[in-house]
Order: sequence, then C-alpha cells, then structure tokens
Amino acid sequence: AVCLPRLSRVAVCGGTHGNELSGVYLVRELLKEKEEEEKPLPVMLVLSNPWAVQQCRRYISTDLNRCFTHAMLNGPGSDTTPYEVLRSRQLNALLGPKGSPEAVDLICDLHNTTANMGLCFITYSDRDWICLHIFRYLQRQMPDVPMRYIHFDITNKESYSLDSVGKHGFAMEVGPQPHGVVRSNIYAAVKSGVQHVLDWVRSFNSGTIFEGGCVDVFTMVKHIDYPRERDTGNIIAAVHPQLQDRDFCLLHPEDPLFQTFSGETLKYKGKEPLYPFFINECAYYEKSIALSLARKRCVVVPSIRVQTDEERQVQ
Amino acid sequence: AVCLPRLSRVAVCGGTHGNELSGVYLVRELLKEKEEEEKPLPVMLVLSNPWAVQQCRRYISTDLNRCFTHAMLNGPGSDTTPYEVLRSRQLNALLGPKGSPEAVDLICDLHNTTANMGLCFITYSDRDWICLHIFRYLQRQMPDVPMRYIHFDITNKESYSLDSVGKHGFAMEVGPQPHGVVRSNIYAAVKSGVQHVLDWVRSFNSGTIFEGGCVDVFTMVKHIDYPRERDTGNIIAAVHPQLQDRDFCLLHPEDPLFQTFSGETLKYKGKEPLYPFFINECAYYEKSIALSLARKRCVVVPSIRVQTDEERQVQ
Repeated sequence: AVCLPRLSRVAVCGGTHGNELSGVYLVRELLKEKEEEEKPLPVMLVLSNPWAVQQCRRYISTDLNRCFTHAMLNGPGSDTTPYEVLRSRQLNALLGPKGSPEAVDLICDLHNTTANMGLCFITYSDRDWICLHIFRYLQRQMPDVPMRYIHFDITNKESYSLDSVGKHGFAMEVGPQPHGVVRSNIYAAVKSGVQHVLDWVRSFNSGTIFEGGCVDVFTMVKHIDYPRERDTGNIIAAVHPQLQDRDFCLLHPEDPLFQTFSGETLKYKGKEPLYPFFINECAYYEKSIALSLARKRCVVVPSIRVQTDEERQVQ
Repeated sequence: AVCLPRLSRVAVCGGTHGNELSGVYLVRELLKEKEEEEKPLPVMLVLSNPWAVQQCRRYISTDLNRCFTHAMLNGPGSDTTPYEVLRSRQLNALLGPKGSPEAVDLICDLHNTTANMGLCFITYSDRDWICLHIFRYLQRQMPDVPMRYIHFDITNKESYSLDSVGKHGFAMEVGPQPHGVVRSNIYAAVKSGVQHVLDWVRSFNSGTIFEGGCVDVFTMVKHIDYPRERDTGNIIAAVHPQLQDRDFCLLHPEDPLFQTFSGETLKYKGKEPLYPFFINECAYYEKSIALSLARKRCVVVPSIRVQTDEERQVQ
C-alpha cells in the first residue's frame, strides 16, 4: 500500500458563498456540538464569508471562491482592495499559507448548487489518493445519494478556490437547492457526508489500510454559454426541458440544448458525446456558463495507509 | 348572466421582483413580438422594477410589492424615500390611480416562487367574478398544470401589491423555480397562462357568455415562522422533509412541520387541519414566514357576460 502522511489538521468550511445555506447551518451546528463534547479529531470549523452570510448573498464585492490564486493571495493591497480579496488573505493565513508545509492537511469546503448534481467532489487533481479514497468511502456509506468526482485540470498555482489552500482539499457541492433556501434533504446529505469524511480521516490516521480500486472521474472539458442578444447581453433562451435536471446524463451531438423564449429548439453542435453538469446553475449566469461538459474515465487508485511514526522519521 | 363592464385596458407586468425571471423574460419577449405584429387587444407590458432586474435582485431598498397601500402611494416624498416607494408612485400614475375610474381594467402581475405551488392566482377578493372566471378558463385550458386560487382577505385600501392598482387584478405565482434562474417548463407555463388570460379577455369583450360554476378558493388564515435562536434570530430548523414540496396537501395536527439542524422533528400544533402553501419560499425567510396556511372552500361563481353598449349608456 502507498504510505501517506497523517492528516492531523482538517478544516470544514461553509458560507464561502453566503447564500449556499447547507454549509452555513452545518458549520453553525457543528460549532454548537463542539462546545458540548470533546471530539477525538480536532476540526477547524470556518464560516468563510461572514459578511456575505449575514446578507444572504453569494458575495459582497467579488466571488471569494475565485480569490485563492497565487497571484491574488500575494498581490498588493490598497484602500480599494475588495472585501473578498482581503478575506481570502485572512483565510490563507488561517488555513495555509497555500503551498507551504504549514497549510492544513485537508479542507472540505461546502457548497450548494441549483443544478441536479447530487453530491459531487470538485477537485484539481485526479491523483490525490486521499480525496479519491474519501470519495470511495462516501459512495459506499451513502448508497442512496448520487455521487460524482469532478476534476478541473488546473495547476495548483492557478487554482482559485478555498479548498486549494490545504495540502489536500475538495469542494463538496450538493444540489439541487435554490440559493437562499435550506432543504432538509440536502442539509441531511451534507451533514452525513461531512460526518463520513471525518470518520474516514480518523480511521486513516489510526492505521486502517484502504483497499485500492477504480473511481469514475469527470474531467471538465469546456463550458457552454447561453445564447445571448448581441447588444444587451441578455439571454434569449433557457436550458431545454429535455436537458434540465439531467446532469451527468450523456449529451450527444444534435440533442436539444436550449429552448428560446419564442419556443425554438437549439441543438448541441459538439462533435463528441460529453457529460453535462452544472446545468442551469443560478450563480453562473453572470459567469457566462449555462452548463459545463466533462469526459468520464476510470482512475485506478492504489491501496493506501498512514505512515507509521518510524516511516515518517526515516524520510 | 351578470353583466360586467368591458375590459379595455389590460396590463401584464413582470420583474416586480427583479430575480423572478419568468416574468422578466416573458415581458421582454412579448415586447419584441408586439413590435412585429398588430395585436387585436392592446396590452400594456411593464417591467416593474428595472433597477432590481438589472441587478437580478428581489429589490434594491425595499420590497416593491409591499408599496401599493393607499398610505404609501399617497405619503410624502423626500430625499430619503426608498427607490421602490418612488417607483410604486410612478407605476400608480401609469396603471392607476388605484381606486379611481382611470385605473386599468385588469393587471396580471407575474411572479415565481421556490415553493412547489404550480400556478396560483393570488387575489384580495373571493367575489371578483372576472378573476375567478379567468382562473376557471385557465384550469380548463391547461389541465396538466396544478392550479389554485388564493385569497388574502385584506381591504383594497390596505392591499399592498401591484395588482391591487387595477380595477381587477391578480398575481400569477408559478413555481417551483429558484430565484435568479429560468426553467423552461416554468417559463412555458407562465407564457401559456398569460396567452390564455388575454384570449379570455378578448373572448369576454366580444360578447361570449361564460357559464357559472364552483371554484375552490384557498383563503389565507395565518403564517408560521421558522423556529429561531432567541439571541441571533438565526433559524434552527428547516421545513420537515415530509412537508417540503407538499404545498396544498392538508396538514393535520401532529404532522411533522420542521426538522431541527440537530435532527429533531417538530410537529404542527394547530387545532385544525389546514392547507399549507408558500412552503420554504426563499424570499420569506426575511419576512418570518416558513409557510402559510389556508382554509379551502367552494365559491359559487355566476355566469357573466360583457355589458352591451346600450346597457352601458343606460347606467
């Protein structure tokens, strides 16, 4: 088995987007529980964007979860630096510094989407055995929740999200849920997911060997924008009813993609079948993303166990 | 048959809440179509809160759809008067004045909800034969869309919403749809609903007799707030999974109502079974409404037809 360092410091973050409420209320709940009982694993619980949470908005000035690039974390500051850029540097001091030996071992950042995506891990690596093993464990523990592993192929330096600050990290993206709303079923899935993540870390740290196997990984290929009016930029079509809610169902060339507001169907003109996800995500209208497309492949994950103290000292 | 005055001036309004997108895109689409063809019925098409639409927010300073009371429309203005209060007076000048003979004959104001409410008419009267007949017509024309008629028992002077400015008026509330999102199926229902409203008005004006009958009317009885933390006002529970999405399914005493974030079930402690609606509407968290409850009864609607010119002159 591959031997990997112990995961001593773990952070669970919510409210990175202030109107994605599962994480906001779960972090608050875990903070209350933490006061009441001693936990075997000390977990840092972080409400990432408290000002946006207070206003129940995604962000105040700019999307916090795009502020964790090397360049933005280390850029100059001034009176006009947006709130979220300042906040990203605070969080980098708390949980990082990104890329350094002082960074926390694992960040699990909680998100919601209006898309029908079930529970997804979103990561920057298709060979982070820790994240992949945690994912496999959750799949087995929560067989009723549809679960996928999404991979954005971006270097660590260019990676922009909060979870990239940890040595390992992933966004746990759960939907469908409107932003600004808590749905009990989605909250329960997130709560259960986080508990299983922490259970896995405890088990890993205590020496359990996790057997290898295969994980389906969805690697993002491209985004597709809405059709828009040239002059105003207003959208002129919505996601087609036959595509809406069908995240991770293979989209073939000539399949319906959009329906214009006058009733016309527009078809997918790509050359190869791909897997759509983030279909009709509320927050991505402003990012010019109607949906994203991914290629699926199987990644073989080796068996792993934690390094013993002796192995660690030898290194 | 009861004879009622001709409906010469009709307004269809969208974007009264700037992030309820069916109405925004339908009004824009109808404006385009209007440029292209002459319609037999001239319809005023209004984007009610253009600044909020531009920012894709419910409102800028205060909820526009609470600004149409007699007191607010006729109160003093100053430098600090909120944008929406000023805008309500502009709209009252355009479509009203409320309560006057100059007011438009019918206002159909388009809204969306995150609640699973299908297509609802929301009105202030259970004896407005025009609204009730239009509703019956839509029920027959759109049998696949669940449809309900909701009645808020409030006097015209105290009524606060845009549709109260017309001689007749209703909000057409359609869901479920996250705010800030367009779903094709919801857009199609709203578009079809508006077309049938206008068809009915044309048919009524041309002398058709509409046979009477019975309409189920849901009269609002009370609102229920989320359980909240005393100090912070933060909610400590979400709508129970067994109640979520079950708008208009009778709620009995001792039925599950909320699930706390620690997992406890809280039950409905009312004394009589009532019909829940607006269950988990996003915009009502800040209004302290987790759901509303209604009593259902059958209202007998008489046959109606338009007054002839002679009948009008006799009056």
